[in-house]
Amino acid sequence: MRTPRASSIPAPVDTDGLLRRIVSAVGRKIDDFAHHTPSRFAVIIFTSIILLWTTIYMLPISSADGTVTPFHEALFTAVSTICVTGLSVVDMATHWSGFGHFMVFLGMQVGAIGVLTLASIMGAIVTRRLGLRQKLVAASDSNALRTHAGPVSESQAVKLGDIGGILATVAISLVIIETCVALLIIPRLLIAGEPLWDAILDGFFWATSAFTNTGFMPTSTGIEPFATDAWMLTCLATAVFLGSLGFPVIFALTRWVKTRQRISVHVKLTLSTTVLLFVLGAIAIYFLEGDNPATIGAQEPVFRPMTAGFMSAMTRSGGFSTIDLANADPATMLAMQMLMFVGGGSASTAGGIKVTTLAILFLAAFAEAKGVNDIQAFGRRIPNDVLRLAVSVTLWGATIVAVSSISLMHFASVPFDEALFEAISAFATCGLSTGLTGDLPEQGAYILSITMWLGRVGTVTMAAALASSEHKQLFRLPEERIIVG
Amino acid sequence: MRTPRASSIPAPVDTDGLLRRIVSAVGRKIDDFAHHTPSRFAVIIFTSIILLWTTIYMLPISSADGTVTPFHEALFTAVSTICVTGLSVVDMATHWSGFGHFMVFLGMQVGAIGVLTLASIMGAIVTRRLGLRQKLVAASDSNALRTHAGPVSESQAVKLGDIGGILATVAISLVIIETCVALLIIPRLLIAGEPLWDAILDGFFWATSAFTNTGFMPTSTGIEPFATDAWMLTCLATAVFLGSLGFPVIFALTRWVKTRQRISVHVKLTLSTTVLLFVLGAIAIYFLEGDNPATIGAQEPVFRPMTAGFMSAMTRSGGFSTIDLANADPATMLAMQMLMFVGGGSASTAGGIKVTTLAILFLAAFAEAKGVNDIQAFGRRIPNDVLRLAVSVTLWGATIVAVSSISLMHFASVPFDEALFEAISAFATCGLSTGLTGDLPEQGAYILSITMWLGRVGTVTMAAALASSEHKQLFRLPEERIIVG
Ligand SMILES: [K+]
Ligand SMILES: [K+]
Repeated sequence: MRTPRASSIPAPVDTDGLLRRIVSAVGRKIDDFAHHTPSRFAVIIFTSIILLWTTIYMLPISSADGTVTPFHEALFTAVSTICVTGLSVVDMATHWSGFGHFMVFLGMQVGAIGVLTLASIMGAIVTRRLGLRQKLVAASDSNALRTHAGPVSESQAVKLGDIGGILATVAISLVIIETCVALLIIPRLLIAGEPLWDAILDGFFWATSAFTNTGFMPTSTGIEPFATDAWMLTCLATAVFLGSLGFPVIFALTRWVKTRQRISVHVKLTLSTTVLLFVLGAIAIYFLEGDNPATIGAQEPVFRPMTAGFMSAMTRSGGFSTIDLANADPATMLAMQMLMFVGGGSASTAGGIKVTTLAILFLAAFAEAKGVNDIQAFGRRIPNDVLRLAVSVTLWGATIVAVSSISLMHFASVPFDEALFEAISAFATCGLSTGLTGDLPEQGAYILSITMWLGRVGTVTMAAALASSEHKQLFRLPEERIIVG
Repeated sequence: MRTPRASSIPAPVDTDGLLRRIVSAVGRKIDDFAHHTPSRFAVIIFTSIILLWTTIYMLPISSADGTVTPFHEALFTAVSTICVTGLSVVDMATHWSGFGHFMVFLGMQVGAIGVLTLASIMGAIVTRRLGLRQKLVAASDSNALRTHAGPVSESQAVKLGDIGGILATVAISLVIIETCVALLIIPRLLIAGEPLWDAILDGFFWATSAFTNTGFMPTSTGIEPFATDAWMLTCLATAVFLGSLGFPVIFALTRWVKTRQRISVHVKLTLSTTVLLFVLGAIAIYFLEGDNPATIGAQEPVFRPMTAGFMSAMTRSGGFSTIDLANADPATMLAMQMLMFVGGGSASTAGGIKVTTLAILFLAAFAEAKGVNDIQAFGRRIPNDVLRLAVSVTLWGATIVAVSSISLMHFASVPFDEALFEAISAFATCGLSTGLTGDLPEQGAYILSITMWLGRVGTVTMAAALASSEHKQLFRLPEERIIVG
């Protein structure tokens, strides 16, 4: 708010110099703002991107019939794209023009890298506070201080790692993985009879949609033609799985393959929890839906475990569905809601409270039951403040889901089961749907937009804002910080 | 398992001595078992009481028409009585004989004192471990060590308080409060036209049902005739409120009235959270149901806030309902489910995860957000292991509710919204119902019986088993332990 010092020095009237001074002053103000409230800065960037995409989606050039898309539909789609949620109030395959489709494609990439790393990293750069960056660095094993007690100090953290390098690595990994997946999918689309150019575009769209955990589909037939196609489902599920692990885990695994460097507890915990949830989810879905002729029960027995596994993997927050969830057993729906609420890995393209958050809550309960003082995993002690962060993130999630569901039921007259399912799907940016979102009234679209926004932004900024709040004075066992939220 | 030492000494064959030795050996075995596994001992006592009541309910003498009540109905009613839940699969007002009614009445008392204090205290007596007893003593301000850091040591705890005294005090408080409430209700029943003797019996039944947070009603008209009766509703709500605070809080308040002794953080936290939940619940119900002509909307405007307040108070776990919950807005149902899940105070007649558990979770989140190291409330630091206990209890509750709902939906074909509501109501021993329980198939009765049992026993034994697991080596701020779970 203070006038920059430069302006108090009399200077010759010089248009060029004045302009430079204005730019400089504005730049300093932005810098100042970002310094003092980095989380708010990240939120503003994120929200601006959503509004930019809303504007683009409203343009006649974006829609297939050249008309203006109504504001609430454009906003909903923009939020759904940038939050990589994948819920839709318009038919994503037919509503948009080629340009519109490209913007969806681009939006998913921006959502996946931009939001997750860019915004948090920008906040970290300008403030030198230890947000997502510290966590990325700490978890990706390039942090030599990893096994030391206490938080990484500010000065050390600034020296650690190259921000540009991390951002570039994230983007490169994204492009490499998506290209690999696309190259695996394109032949399948060609076999299915798509023309070459369509197959290439659709292949990349599928790959992006899967790896970014968005769940939009390029064609109006959707995933239906591939419902029992092991090749296609495996490609998509693998891409979703990789995306949901989180970049720190992907980096660590890549490094492990190259150098056999020790794998951090965060990586082990993310992998083991993800695998456990996948297996438990698949078993639950298989047994609850196996006798349901409207879903898995209609398939030949050989395909049933595959479908159950695919649906379980999609709850991380992939959002593709090969069965009609409107016909699923309500018991399955509740099981899937719980899996969706947990979501994927930290600093990943997946949403939810994150698998490590759930793991920490259970590890704390186990420690309590055993009467040991410390939360332990894989031979390491996990500091107590991580539990507090896990509790905070879980409460935040539960509160959002509760308020969102109650609003949907009361203001948009959505039935109980659908309201809870869509609210959790939106919060966790999962995008699975009972089919409600398609016929949602306008106020319902706004409620879900806010839910998606809160679910995505809230968790990220909360994690960034709270990650460095520890001030431990203790030196007990060798300690290792893991990522939650 | 070892033969008692006495039997290895040769003794003259003497029938009287042999009997005495057998009794002594059995006694020693029981003592031994209780010493080594006090929680299991408490669970066995509790379960035995339920089975005893099941047998009594099955007797022809217990039913109004002199027939044998089917096992699953008798079991469900016994569990519902001893767990002070108040759900019913038979018409409680007409199904039972006078003797049956008396056993319900007695069962509620046994459930209220017996289970809460007796079983845990017995475990504590035989093992000298610090279970509920320590918590009662610690929180009821008779503990001179209250403000010291660290747990109360075993030798100190054994000296503290007189177990018989505590039990007597609990029973006396129960009788005094129930009698007071009954004396306030009986005139109202006389005015309503009940004969004197009926009014006395029903008055005590209402008072007991309310204070023990059970929610059974003595007459087939139920609470309907009093739906807008401020006197009756206030009496019932106050009794439910007092019961749900927990005996430690009641003791502390009584002592405060007499001696103005300092009130502990546990008492303050229980009171403030209970009041906050009551107000928030009433506001939510008032606004969500105000426009619903099938519930509160049908009432004259002056009665609406009273009904909303009454329903909010009942979610602690009173279980009376003056509106038909089957017609309530689904948004209200979700709000009530959340309130029921939280339940009442620790060591109270109410169920749920307990208000202090919720408070600790939020206090931890606030501490995290503020970046302070300790969880603080009312000027005191709350040790970190309390958070772990709160997390354990909450996870335990969420798991029970999830498994129970999924089972109800899948095996008893209960719709999603009703399954979740009844499961939470059963877990939290609240007893509010959408009307489902009345037409529940047999397997549904078993599922809910197990849910009630787990909700009641699990939380108590878990709290007892885990309460003394702390081994802190630190002496920082003056510290105060509060009760959760
Ligand atoms: K998604
Ligand atoms: K009850």
